Amino acid sequence: MRVDILLLDIVVVLALARLLGMGARLIGQPPVIGEIVAGIVLGPTLLGDVIGQQLFPADLRPVLKGLADVGLVLFMFVVGMELDQKLVRGRGRVAASVSLSSTLLPFGLGCLVALWLAADHDQGRTLPFVLFFGAAMSATAFPVLARILTDRQMHRTRLGGLALACAAIIDVLAWTVLAVVVAIAGTGGSGQWQVALAVPFALVMFLGVRPLLRRMVPAYEKAGRLTPNLLALVLIGLFASAWATEWMHVHFIFGAFLFGAVMPREGAEKLNHEILERLEQLAVLLLLPMFFVVAGMSVDLTTLDLGGVGVLAVILAVAIGGKLGGAYVAARLQRVPGRQAAALAALINTRGLTEIVILSVGLEKGVLDTELYSLMVVMALVTTAMTGPLLSRVYPARQVERDLAEAQRAAAGPRVDRRVLVVVEDPDEVEGLAEIAREQAAGDGSREVVLVHLRPYPAERLEVGLGLSAELAEMAGTMAGLERLAAAIRTEELPVRVVSRFSADVAAELPGLVAGAEPHVIVIAPTAPGQAAVRRAAGRRVTLVDPAERRAVQPAGKDT
Amino acid sequence: MRVDILLLDIVVVLALARLLGMGARLIGQPPVIGEIVAGIVLGPTLLGDVIGQQLFPADLRPVLKGLADVGLVLFMFVVGMELDQKLVRGRGRVAASVSLSSTLLPFGLGCLVALWLAADHDQGRTLPFVLFFGAAMSATAFPVLARILTDRQMHRTRLGGLALACAAIIDVLAWTVLAVVVAIAGTGGSGQWQVALAVPFALVMFLGVRPLLRRMVPAYEKAGRLTPNLLALVLIGLFASAWATEWMHVHFIFGAFLFGAVMPREGAEKLNHEILERLEQLAVLLLLPMFFVVAGMSVDLTTLDLGGVGVLAVILAVAIGGKLGGAYVAARLQRVPGRQAAALAALINTRGLTEIVILSVGLEKGVLDTELYSLMVVMALVTTAMTGPLLSRVYPARQVERDLAEAQRAAAGPRVDRRVLVVVEDPDEVEGLAEIAREQAAGDGSREVVLVHLRPYPAERLEVGLGLSAELAEMAGTMAGLERLAAAIRTEELPVRVVSRFSADVAAELPGLVAGAEPHVIVIAPTAPGQAAVRRAAGRRVTLVDPAERRAVQPAGKDT
Repeated sequence: MRVDILLLDIVVVLALARLLGMGARLIGQPPVIGEIVAGIVLGPTLLGDVIGQQLFPADLRPVLKGLADVGLVLFMFVVGMELDQKLVRGRGRVAASVSLSSTLLPFGLGCLVALWLAADHDQGRTLPFVLFFGAAMSATAFPVLARILTDRQMHRTRLGGLALACAAIIDVLAWTVLAVVVAIAGTGGSGQWQVALAVPFALVMFLGVRPLLRRMVPAYEKAGRLTPNLLALVLIGLFASAWATEWMHVHFIFGAFLFGAVMPREGAEKLNHEILERLEQLAVLLLLPMFFVVAGMSVDLTTLDLGGVGVLAVILAVAIGGKLGGAYVAARLQRVPGRQAAALAALINTRGLTEIVILSVGLEKGVLDTELYSLMVVMALVTTAMTGPLLSRVYPARQVERDLAEAQRAAAGPRVDRRVLVVVEDPDEVEGLAEIAREQAAGDGSREVVLVHLRPYPAERLEVGLGLSAELAEMAGTMAGLERLAAAIRTEELPVRVVSRFSADVAAELPGLVAGAEPHVIVIAPTAPGQAAVRRAAGRRVTLVDPAERRAVQPAGKDT
Repeated sequence: MRVDILLLDIVVVLALARLLGMGARLIGQPPVIGEIVAGIVLGPTLLGDVIGQQLFPADLRPVLKGLADVGLVLFMFVVGMELDQKLVRGRGRVAASVSLSSTLLPFGLGCLVALWLAADHDQGRTLPFVLFFGAAMSATAFPVLARILTDRQMHRTRLGGLALACAAIIDVLAWTVLAVVVAIAGTGGSGQWQVALAVPFALVMFLGVRPLLRRMVPAYEKAGRLTPNLLALVLIGLFASAWATEWMHVHFIFGAFLFGAVMPREGAEKLNHEILERLEQLAVLLLLPMFFVVAGMSVDLTTLDLGGVGVLAVILAVAIGGKLGGAYVAARLQRVPGRQAAALAALINTRGLTEIVILSVGLEKGVLDTELYSLMVVMALVTTAMTGPLLSRVYPARQVERDLAEAQRAAAGPRVDRRVLVVVEDPDEVEGLAEIAREQAAGDGSREVVLVHLRPYPAERLEVGLGLSAELAEMAGTMAGLERLAAAIRTEELPVRVVSRFSADVAAELPGLVAGAEPHVIVIAPTAPGQAAVRRAAGRRVTLVDPAERRAVQPAGKDT
């Protein structure tokens, strides 16, 4: 191995992935598109054999693959951690039927296409080939979908929540089906009895390892931070789980995903956030591009002939038609309005990185030949690239604004005689706020308490597909604190509402939000960001209360 | 390559490095000792060929080496970034003579030993062998030294500062000498004209690249955070610089170190802190253990015979004698008291990871054979392990306490008629404090303002050798804010002192520090941690001022 070539490769791969990722962003596409293209550009299709052999000599490929595999383990762990059943809560029926329908239809159609292709491509193992092909048709990229939603501020709308719930369910469905398919493909060989351990292993992870991992939460809270020992423990467990599934002839991605899925959720928001922070940035920036390149190096479109173009057309038709049709029909049957059903279908059609991971598993396990692999990668690119434009068409920006305004109006709530609005600065420090809120809301007539909390976007947002997890984790932690406070105030006569969302500029957005709620009393600390503007906007008809001093202050009082 | 073995290797290496690192800590040694031993344990000395071939098959070694190399690039970058000429400032003369003497003496003695060993070990290239051997004798591990100092709270003493300054100078000396040696060794081959580019390259890095990198600071400040693009830029530049020096037949570690050294310092404390935070944890936890194992796999002590033991004894005598003697004599000549000179010598004798990196370069470049390499690794272990016990002997804990108490007394300062003590909670938010301090210090007689700031230890401390950098970076950022405030208050008649240090428990330590300064007025916000205790400790003879309200408050007033 020549170290200088390895270092040069890292430079070239990082730079090209970054450049094309930024380029994709410029034309309104998710960066992952550019990064996948970077992998293909560095493969045989464009570079040809001469430069390819110089830049990626045969003896270096295992090293690149090793780096890519480590990146993939970290990535799949993050995907598993981002799974959150809270996303599905309250939307279960609609989400379940849309997910099932939009997975089963492309799966079924994919299997039919595979039967047609089997003669040329099944390499003598028809059943695994057909099942794998069907599974590969039915994937949805949760990370890309989440990024598109947040980019358009749609994750605050009802539709965005529904789309996230569907994607989360499809994620579990797709990885489970794929694991089964790979296991079936694995039993083709001889002496591979280990595959029988896959189901017991999953059970042990959920029933045995999950409770053990939960003990990390008190350890983390006691230390007050993610100690190197805790992080080392997670890493060791993660790679051990990945190794175990690989040893069972399934594939290491399932072990990595599973370990992410059994990480503690309840009360572990901060812990998970810190872990993700550490892993995402280096894994995504440094190691994942290696995976794109290793995946791209197997894509060879130079041999594509007219017959291949025909197969590609069929694949695209089935992949897109199956997903869009399955999702749309199921959503309409569940009484989702037409426009929103169409938007949901458009979102769920995005394949992104998830598809590339699935395809490279197929290539590695020998169920997919290079030609079909190349065509399927093109399918992944096309379905991912079409999501943005299609969504803009069926669900334009003004529709998003209308939905957001509606959500805002809903937040204003019904008319009451006295509405006490409490601006919560830090949901972890609410001492005394419950008492003050109840004091202020005392008396006759209809009363209501509204807890308002605007949270700055976490600084650690990533642009590379992942990253919603951090926001979801923070928001979950925030809501827990606010709900505790709400529970402490709420009585039968005194309803409490919680209004909380992320904000790019708390000081600028708070006054509008407060004024929109039409409060009679505002409880706000003089140190709260935006409090001066809130005071000015409130006017003299509103009483302002300083929670530290527990006394009313003049709206026009001096700013400290 | 079998992926399952790679994953298993990662699990075994991580777990063993972590376990032995923790074990080292238990017996009062730096964890790096345990991690180096973990590498040796997994090598041929203990495992033998049978398990070794199973666990680390030949086709997997390049992959492990690739992971180790990436880890080493990140590590050397961190080492380069931790270089800080501020450490040397004000201690230049003493530090320079101690460093020079404690580098030159072991270097010279090492060259003599090498001449003696040359016949058996120089592999036909005497000059590079002799120079390399000398250079390998004279290293000091800055990271290990820094960790020992902070563990003993000694980095706040004069001695600790001096030791850090010496280690910083030795670092630069050792890497420069080593680069020259490797370059000389490189010219032995044919057609390696690129080696001539090494010096121009270093000049371009300092004169051309450094100003370019400085532009990252405004970009960072504008974004308010380390964007993925900025981090990607740093990573691309880092690996490009590492590749360039490797291509010049020097070694990639110099390019990585150099890139760390030319990173912007002025005003870039926060930026660097964020970069280090990202790189350290994963690089140190996940990739560096791979380097330990790759380094350890070349250590073979099974063939050690009586002659070898004799050579080891000579190596140990020269390495320890040269370092201790060189440092002690030079320090005494510079009038450093005997006990402190001895402590300084003991500290500088620690070789740690730095030595292992140097040795693996020698092995890779063919100037060191496996036998000498193994013996030198043992020397690195012995010198690192002896530092703690030796230091405890010549400079016991009660001496450290005495030094700290002296530093505390120096902080109390001279007698004045009116001392205004301002407790600064957040050095970035000091609006109005300057005015209040000047108001309170107005009047006749001698006056003084003391700015006190206790900072909690940053949460991100690492235990694995590195990690001081984060504290130094934070402290530097803190001091900049405090000094700005001091400059705004200071006049010819009104001196201002700044007292700032890290604290494990701000609320507990603040009252003592405040009382020790014997102030007449304390300016402290009611929200400051520990303010209740400060109020109680202050007593009625001290006037307390609330900076938000700009009015005196009763010392015994209600706590809000």
